[in-house]
Amino acid sequence: MKIIESREIGRQLTKDEYKNFVTPLKSRLARLSQEVSREKLPVIVLVEGFGASGKGSLISELILNWDPRGFRVYNIGRPEPSEIRRPWLYRFWLKLPEYGKIAVLDRSWYTPVTVDRVDDDMNKNTFNRMINDINVFERQLTDDGYCVIKVFLHISAAEQKERFERLMSSPETSWRVTSRDLKHNEQYKQQFKAFSEAIERTDTENAPWYVVDAEDYRYRNVKTFEIVADAIEKALEKKRSEEPVTLPEITGGNFKIIPAKKLEEYDLTKTISDDSYKKILKNYQDELSKLHNKLYMKKITVVICYEGWDAAGKGGNIKRIARSLDARGYDVIPIAAPTKLEIEHHYLWRFWRQLPKDGHIAIFDRTWYGRVMVERIEGFCTEIRWRQAYQEMNEFEKMLYDRGTVILKFWLHIDKDEQLRRFRAREETEEKRWKINEEDWRNRDKWDLYKVAVDDMLTYTSTDFAPWHVIESNDKKYARLKTMKILVDALHEALDEK
Amino acid sequence: MKIIESREIGRQLTKDEYKNFVTPLKSRLARLSQEVSREKLPVIVLVEGFGASGKGSLISELILNWDPRGFRVYNIGRPEPSEIRRPWLYRFWLKLPEYGKIAVLDRSWYTPVTVDRVDDDMNKNTFNRMINDINVFERQLTDDGYCVIKVFLHISAAEQKERFERLMSSPETSWRVTSRDLKHNEQYKQQFKAFSEAIERTDTENAPWYVVDAEDYRYRNVKTFEIVADAIEKALEKKRSEEPVTLPEITGGNFKIIPAKKLEEYDLTKTISDDSYKKILKNYQDELSKLHNKLYMKKITVVICYEGWDAAGKGGNIKRIARSLDARGYDVIPIAAPTKLEIEHHYLWRFWRQLPKDGHIAIFDRTWYGRVMVERIEGFCTEIRWRQAYQEMNEFEKMLYDRGTVILKFWLHIDKDEQLRRFRAREETEEKRWKINEEDWRNRDKWDLYKVAVDDMLTYTSTDFAPWHVIESNDKKYARLKTMKILVDALHEALDEK
Repeated sequence: MKIIESREIGRQLTKDEYKNFVTPLKSRLARLSQEVSREKLPVIVLVEGFGASGKGSLISELILNWDPRGFRVYNIGRPEPSEIRRPWLYRFWLKLPEYGKIAVLDRSWYTPVTVDRVDDDMNKNTFNRMINDINVFERQLTDDGYCVIKVFLHISAAEQKERFERLMSSPETSWRVTSRDLKHNEQYKQQFKAFSEAIERTDTENAPWYVVDAEDYRYRNVKTFEIVADAIEKALEKKRSEEPVTLPEITGGNFKIIPAKKLEEYDLTKTISDDSYKKILKNYQDELSKLHNKLYMKKITVVICYEGWDAAGKGGNIKRIARSLDARGYDVIPIAAPTKLEIEHHYLWRFWRQLPKDGHIAIFDRTWYGRVMVERIEGFCTEIRWRQAYQEMNEFEKMLYDRGTVILKFWLHIDKDEQLRRFRAREETEEKRWKINEEDWRNRDKWDLYKVAVDDMLTYTSTDFAPWHVIESNDKKYARLKTMKILVDALHEALDEK
Repeated sequence: MKIIESREIGRQLTKDEYKNFVTPLKSRLARLSQEVSREKLPVIVLVEGFGASGKGSLISELILNWDPRGFRVYNIGRPEPSEIRRPWLYRFWLKLPEYGKIAVLDRSWYTPVTVDRVDDDMNKNTFNRMINDINVFERQLTDDGYCVIKVFLHISAAEQKERFERLMSSPETSWRVTSRDLKHNEQYKQQFKAFSEAIERTDTENAPWYVVDAEDYRYRNVKTFEIVADAIEKALEKKRSEEPVTLPEITGGNFKIIPAKKLEEYDLTKTISDDSYKKILKNYQDELSKLHNKLYMKKITVVICYEGWDAAGKGGNIKRIARSLDARGYDVIPIAAPTKLEIEHHYLWRFWRQLPKDGHIAIFDRTWYGRVMVERIEGFCTEIRWRQAYQEMNEFEKMLYDRGTVILKFWLHIDKDEQLRRFRAREETEEKRWKINEEDWRNRDKWDLYKVAVDDMLTYTSTDFAPWHVIESNDKKYARLKTMKILVDALHEALDEK
């Protein structure tokens, strides 16, 4: 509450004062927007505030001197059906600006925990969880270098009422005032309380709030322009500075991590006879087929993650599962090197974009764990960033889990000799030759580095809600049955709980 | 009607026959999908059919041997709110596969003109217009090299009823049958008629229909696999063949084209005094601001297209308009060279993606007309394709117009001397130097080629619903007022009509 109340109220500027302040501010903003583009700084300006506090006209003024190639304005309304069927932050992740661009949001992820909270009477647990989600989200963004500027436009209940009345007095503008707006004016106190609470609990060092007195539009503009310019300038300075940084400790974050065996502790001699394989596989496939029906009916979402050594048999394993599924209810999502557009976003962005709808199954052929394997080993991201990633990925999966998603993570494990045999077999078979290239051989040379990375991954991201399953895959058939069993058991369990 | 009726009914295959047919077909499909990728052929497989005719299980079988990197399955349901607020084909344009990929559609753009038509009792004019839209859409795709495969799965009313009953008899599947499904079975005759009519009117040489007897799933699979394989093979052959082609005539298509003056007929000495400029501009801006409110209220959409010589003053012109608009209701869309993803789609794809919602204003800074200017002159597309583009662009704009969109197209015209003065001024001014580069000088060398291209564009794409306005822009201020006047007049007219 203190944050809103601590504002200095009743600030006003005369026309002349305004001109004196605003003109240099506008050129400063124009100049900064060019630097943002040059320095590849991603910026999010989020404007919240009471109804009729002037969010729209403030934004119209703010963007006027910016090159349209450099920014985009989003009006955040109620979510679309396809957005409702995914974790609630999904639609905001999708709106993240590219590095070097500015996203301006008229309302934001704070609307659900403030305005909608009063309208829809949200329970406290949900509210707490969502506030936590927001803090995680914003920390993930700012850790990646996003500059997040949060502005709250403040007006009094009386001023709001007057503005609504003024709008209603003219036929040209009266349609802008809805019954919901009027209700909000009546509920000003509740809204005030909700905004205060949300602001207080999310006013972090990395993404602080700015409450702006918006009763006088001139003061509002000048104050906001100043806030935006200062914040961008500070972020640019930080980006340019080459001060040495302290590496963060590797940690999975504040989650219940379960003990993970090292790769070398697994017994790769496990095998299965051809006859048993066929019979058991058939049984599992029939069962999975039935389960898919039930999952769809109960709207249970499943995310299956495949990682593993090159040539460990991911493709064949996935195919055995896909064969039992209805094409309308699942997608296999192959993860290759990121595109240019993907590189210019937070690394989790492309995975958020691919999240399945409620009741669907997504099978990821390689995953976000590339961050702590290939990106770590090849130096595609800084050491700080991959160290932070273990926690970020646990947080990401926790959000899916909180929504009721079943998460299965498989590491297909083979030994170095078996890989060599398979590489050679690929080279010798006409139809398989496309599956093997120089890069595979280069990765093989780094086997020991990968081994360390995989063990770290297993250690820090085996959570109780999304544990890793290491699949002994020297015998492909054994591997297929083992993943099938884990999958079928997990789905039964999820259905029993529901 | 004849198309559905001419099928051979009651086809069945034994288990052994099926195996003999389907095994080689599956390898053929797998091989072809790799060629599709190699040859960059875009393929659309669209599966329509009666409820419970097996669309889903057919698709599950079809995709099983394809590399997940090469295809994507779409289930077409009811449109989302954001899709309803745009031309009806918008959501289908967005799902076009990249060159070299396959899109498999479970239901399609035929659902609105068949199933929904019966459900919602569509009037004949709307139906006719939509059928025409479909034929235009498919022709535009196939002219661009897309392979469009349209399959209709046919079952009898009795068979459909039996399948629904079978599904309803088990608690695991009964939820799949909705009351809508049962109603559809009762309305089988009407649906049959609607499908027959739609199929008959869209069974074109470039995108023919295939009606498949789907009572026996084995026959259905074999027949469809064969159809898909044959069609892809034919398209690949056509793509590889180097037969000489006859160039199509340049034409704007079957539209009411209005006479256009040549560029050289415009008087570029027109000018306005500074005093009058300020006063008149202020008036227009105030008026535009009020108009924007009304447009938004009446959900009138506006698309403003800016084209013109380099340095003709597009940016400054756009800024004068944007200043009067509410940021929540308009977007400036700068069109640069296409990205890799955009190049790998039909050239209109990226413009469809950027269409404004109903009631919004989109200002395009450069447009789809790049096709008949820079792409024509630099040889970025074949001569056939740019010759076809005039008609395609008229068709595109007609679809917007049919929805009630106001379309304004401005060509900002200066002479060669004025351009030279502006280029030099840019080079001499520190803050403007970024606006001028080598490419601008190279384009200038091609002035005469561009002049021919612009005159062609004016001649073939000045339609009565979307005429070109050539703006004499040697005097920037005169130019700004003229566009403002045309815009304000057009908006008044649109509001009066509404």
